[in-house]
This record gives sequence, structure tokens and C-alpha cells, in this order.
Amino acid sequence: MPPRIQPIEWRDGILRFLDQTRLPVEVAYVETSDYRDVAEALRRLAIRGAPLIGIAAAYALALAAREDAPSLERAASELFGTRPTAVNLGWALERVLAAARDRAPDELPDAMALEASRIHRRQIGDDARMGELGAALIAPGSTLLTHCNTGSLATGGIGTALGVVKTAHWQGKGVGALVGETRPLLQGARLTAWELASEGVPHHLIVDAAAPGLIARGEVQAVLVGADRIAANGDVANKVGTYGLALAAHAHGVPFYVVAPVSSIDPRAAVGDDIVIEQRPPDEVTSFGFLRVAPEGTGVLNPAFDVAPARCVTAIVTERGVLRPPLDAAIRAALRPAEAVTQ
Amino acid sequence: MPPRIQPIEWRDGILRFLDQTRLPVEVAYVETSDYRDVAEALRRLAIRGAPLIGIAAAYALALAAREDAPSLERAASELFGTRPTAVNLGWALERVLAAARDRAPDELPDAMALEASRIHRRQIGDDARMGELGAALIAPGSTLLTHCNTGSLATGGIGTALGVVKTAHWQGKGVGALVGETRPLLQGARLTAWELASEGVPHHLIVDAAAPGLIARGEVQAVLVGADRIAANGDVANKVGTYGLALAAHAHGVPFYVVAPVSSIDPRAAVGDDIVIEQRPPDEVTSFGFLRVAPEGTGVLNPAFDVAPARCVTAIVTERGVLRPPLDAAIRAALRPAEAVTQ
Repeated sequence: MPPRIQPIEWRDGILRFLDQTRLPVEVAYVETSDYRDVAEALRRLAIRGAPLIGIAAAYALALAAREDAPSLERAASELFGTRPTAVNLGWALERVLAAARDRAPDELPDAMALEASRIHRRQIGDDARMGELGAALIAPGSTLLTHCNTGSLATGGIGTALGVVKTAHWQGKGVGALVGETRPLLQGARLTAWELASEGVPHHLIVDAAAPGLIARGEVQAVLVGADRIAANGDVANKVGTYGLALAAHAHGVPFYVVAPVSSIDPRAAVGDDIVIEQRPPDEVTSFGFLRVAPEGTGVLNPAFDVAPARCVTAIVTERGVLRPPLDAAIRAALRPAEAVTQ
Repeated sequence: MPPRIQPIEWRDGILRFLDQTRLPVEVAYVETSDYRDVAEALRRLAIRGAPLIGIAAAYALALAAREDAPSLERAASELFGTRPTAVNLGWALERVLAAARDRAPDELPDAMALEASRIHRRQIGDDARMGELGAALIAPGSTLLTHCNTGSLATGGIGTALGVVKTAHWQGKGVGALVGETRPLLQGARLTAWELASEGVPHHLIVDAAAPGLIARGEVQAVLVGADRIAANGDVANKVGTYGLALAAHAHGVPFYVVAPVSSIDPRAAVGDDIVIEQRPPDEVTSFGFLRVAPEGTGVLNPAFDVAPARCVTAIVTERGVLRPPLDAAIRAALRPAEAVTQ
């Protein structure tokens, strides 16, 4: 079944995207043919989620090519500057620029738009594959616990971990979801609950700290999370809170599945400790919208990620197959074809 | 060292209390000689925390006794109705009413005020004792992770778990604190961070889900929590999120201390599963102040508590001593004197 949520769509030189900052209060789409509008949307997080950022930037560069006297370098540089630490962003811009190389000026717009839509379609395909492979692991009637937003709003396809939940639902498995709200930025409450409602998947929202107790009481049949980065040994860095879920799942024999494309694997990181944990601004924790919730001047530790150790990971679901322990060997095998291509 | 925070004070027929709903934005005290103001403060959670509720209600009943033509039954019933599930509230009102029995009308005000201040002073003494016993377990330079608010704002003394943190600080042990914000109601961010700042204890605020990862990275030397109810086998029901902390502490060999008066032990609950977990209203999770953070109609599971199993509890610090495993035997021994008194 095709995803009902289209966070981004290209049609005849017009890019239409969902303004995620207005969710869940309002479902507002923006239509534009000006790449600068997309740059601004990336800057203010109206478009977020690593794969979706790359897709949006690719389409935006294709928009820039349609201008009179376009400057692709300037457009690429402006788009790249919106989220300079997003790996997918630089990669997608590179691909669209490469597709423009050695083309006659009048061929540029179509060639670049084609490459952008290829990136988008490939993501849709990879997500669908992960969804199928992951859903095969889910028993009928399961309640699936998920964290953060790993859905269409993050990838432009059906999503990774959330794509598995949706696919199991579409297959008629009668699954339900528990959604961790995901403090500090509440991607679970704001985005995942909205996606699941849009798709008609039964779900309940919980505060993040409630998850271990609910797992202990047998109310969860599987935990499904995405990954920001996966080390060579199978340690998984992901949104803060992931480690607590992994620990609780492990303690109670509940499967803990990581759903992420092979591109999330970073073979330069031997183990989780090699992955640098980004510290985010303190006001994400001390304030809530315009509301101040802690005293002036309160110090904060706000790590963006934590690391679920490989020993707690039941399997990693990728577009190339399900990786099972021993994860180090499975990861080496999964990376082999990609390495062959680049050699 | 005496606590610098006085959430409630009685002086010559005037009750002065801190309006906790204004924290951390404003430190506002209310002075009143009308028990109805106290009832209203209890209703709107300006005064909260089980022991402090009992103390406030006791003083309020003593205020009622000073009125012309007082109706103690009506006042007690109105006060009890403000928080009918709070065990300490009924118990404290009973004690003050008992002190009034067989008294001449002109003796009532002083006799009842004396009993209320006895309840208050006993709490201060019990807290101080738990603080001393608990602080003896803390190594110099430790970072202590705490959850919810278990301080002066909850008990009227120095607090239970937070009282241990303060006592270790006053003893010059050079401790610091990590404060879990404690969603959904943010007692950690709003109240505990404010108490620690008032007392000059170095601290950092964290989202609750960050705790397991920080424990794994060696950034916590002990976890200290209070208890809503303790089963006969040593299972501890406490604010939601406690179980995840217990699990992480256990996994990484970090001591997990429960600090609670013997009155928190419920010998009718053989094990944690016998303790009914209260479900709180969904809008605590879907809204944040006036801000809606989840789509209209989102279903919610909002358990108020979870249960840390006895096997994860390093010790229970009570006013009668430190209970160590095997906790079932230690609890039986701790309860013996109290049972003798009531037989």
C-alpha cells in the first residue's frame, strides 16, 4: 500500500512540502518553485530527518537550475549551509551536481530533476524493503514500542522503524503502537502520533520514562528504533533514550529491532564508544515552547544520542537483509557489495 | 545545618506557605489565618507532596479551631476532600482531631496547634535522620542522580532522597546532582532544580531518558529516589521512570538507594505486583501548559508509578536505619517496633 503521507512531492517544476513545524496543530503544505524557500524551510526545520533533508535539497537544486542565469554553485552552497552536519545533504547535492556535469544548459533542468527524483524513489524503495523485511519479524496482535520519528516525515518514504509498524498494519497483522514522546523535542508526540493517526494505526502516547515499566508488565512485544549511526561491532547510536529501551527489552526477553539503511553503518567506528555524542543546547530542556520550566541559569546535560550495545540488539533490519548476531560478521557481509562497487 | 527552604511555617496563628505552582518563575509565599485558603491551596497543588499535605492540613484544622463557633467536622471534611487519596492527609487530620477530644473549648486552639507542630517537627526529625544515614553511604565527590521532587517542597523537612543529597553537600563531601526533569509534571525541573539552587548544590538537569546512557558512561556514582509505597519483599513503587533508573544502575554496578520513612512500607502488599498503579489524566502528556504537543484525540497511557524490583535495590534508608538485602527480612525487623505499639 502506498504511503498516505507525502511530506515532499515534485510535479512539473513545483515542489510541494509539508511544513513540519506546524504539526500536529495544522497540516500545512508549501508549494514553491524557488530553491530559496526550500533553504529557508531546511533552516527552520520545516523539513527535517536526514534522508528527507537530502531529498529536499536535491529537488531544490533542480529548482535552481530552472532559473534564468542560474548559479548552481551558489545555490548548492546556500543549501549545504542550512544543515552543515547532515551527511545526506552534502551527498545528495553532490549527486545532483554530478548529473549536471557535461550537460548542455538546456538539458540541465530535466537531468537534475531526474536525479533528484531518483534519490527520492530509491529511498521509497529502500524503506518499502525494510518495511517488508521488518514486518515479517512481527507476530500478529503485537504492541510495538517506538521512539522519536522514523517515519515518512523523516525519510520521504514510509520510514524505517515506523515503516515496519505501518507495513505490519497494512498486512492486517492487527498491531498497535506505543509511542515514546521523545523529550526534549517531542518528535514522538508531535510527529509519530500524527503519522500513525493518519495511517489509522492504533496507538498510545507515553512519556519516555514509562517505557521500561510497561515492558516489564508485558505490554510490549517488540521495540523498534532507527539508527543515527551503527558501529562495526553492531553498537547503535540513536536518539537519547534508546539505551534505556534496549536495556529493558533485553532484561525482559523482548526483541529489540534496529531498522536502518546500510548507509547508517560507519565502519570507521569500531565500537559505540568511538561515536562522538553531540550535546544539544540547554534551552531545549529548560524551556518548552515559550514556557520556562526550570529556574534561570540551571545547568543542563543534553546529549542528543546514546548507544544501545550490540548485545542488546536482536537484529538490524536493512534494505539488504536482516542482520543477526554475531552482528560484527553480519555487518562485514552487508558492507561487502557496496565496497566492491566503490573499488 | 537547618534547611534554608521553609515551604510551611506556623507563627502565632498565622500559617505561611510557599505557593509551589508559581515555582520556578516566582518565589511567592501566602500568609493566612483562614483554613479555607489552605484547602484551596491543597486543591490547586500550591502545596503538594504526601507528608507536606498532611502537615498543611493539620495546621489548617488548628486554624479552624480558632474561629468563632468553629465546626471542626466540617473543616476536617473539607480539607480531606481536597486530596482524598493522600494517606497522610487523613492520618494527620485524625491525629489533630484526637488531640481535641475531651478538651474544653478554650483549650482547643492551642492543643490542636501543638499537635500539628508535633507532626511537622517529627517529619523534620525523621528527614534529618534519613539524611544523616544516607549521606554516610555517599563517597566524596560523587555525582548523585535523583528523580522527581523528594525535598523540602514534598515533606516540609529537608526531604527524603533529596535530603540525603543536601546533607552530603552540607557535610562538605563535594557532591553534585543530576536531576531528571520527571515528565509529565516536571517536578524535577520545576522544584528539585530550584531547591538545589537555593541550597547551593551543584547540579545539572537532564531529560529522563538520558539517565541510562549517562549511568553507562560512568557519570553517576549513586541513584537516590523516594518511594510511594514499598512492598513487604522490598519492591518499590515510585514515580514513573524509577524502574528504568533501577535497571540501569543494576546493569552498571551503581548503587540504587531508596530513601523513605518506614510509613511508606505497606506490609499488605507482598510484592510490587500487588500495588495498584494509578493512571493519570491523558492531558498531562498531550499538553504542556497551554501548549498542545500531540494531535487531538491521541490516546495516552499515563501510569503515575512503576516498580523497581527488590533485586535492583542496594538499600532502603529509613528513619529507623538502613535496610539491606535480604530486604524482606530487614523490612520485617524494621516494622516490628511499630507493630508492637499498635497491638
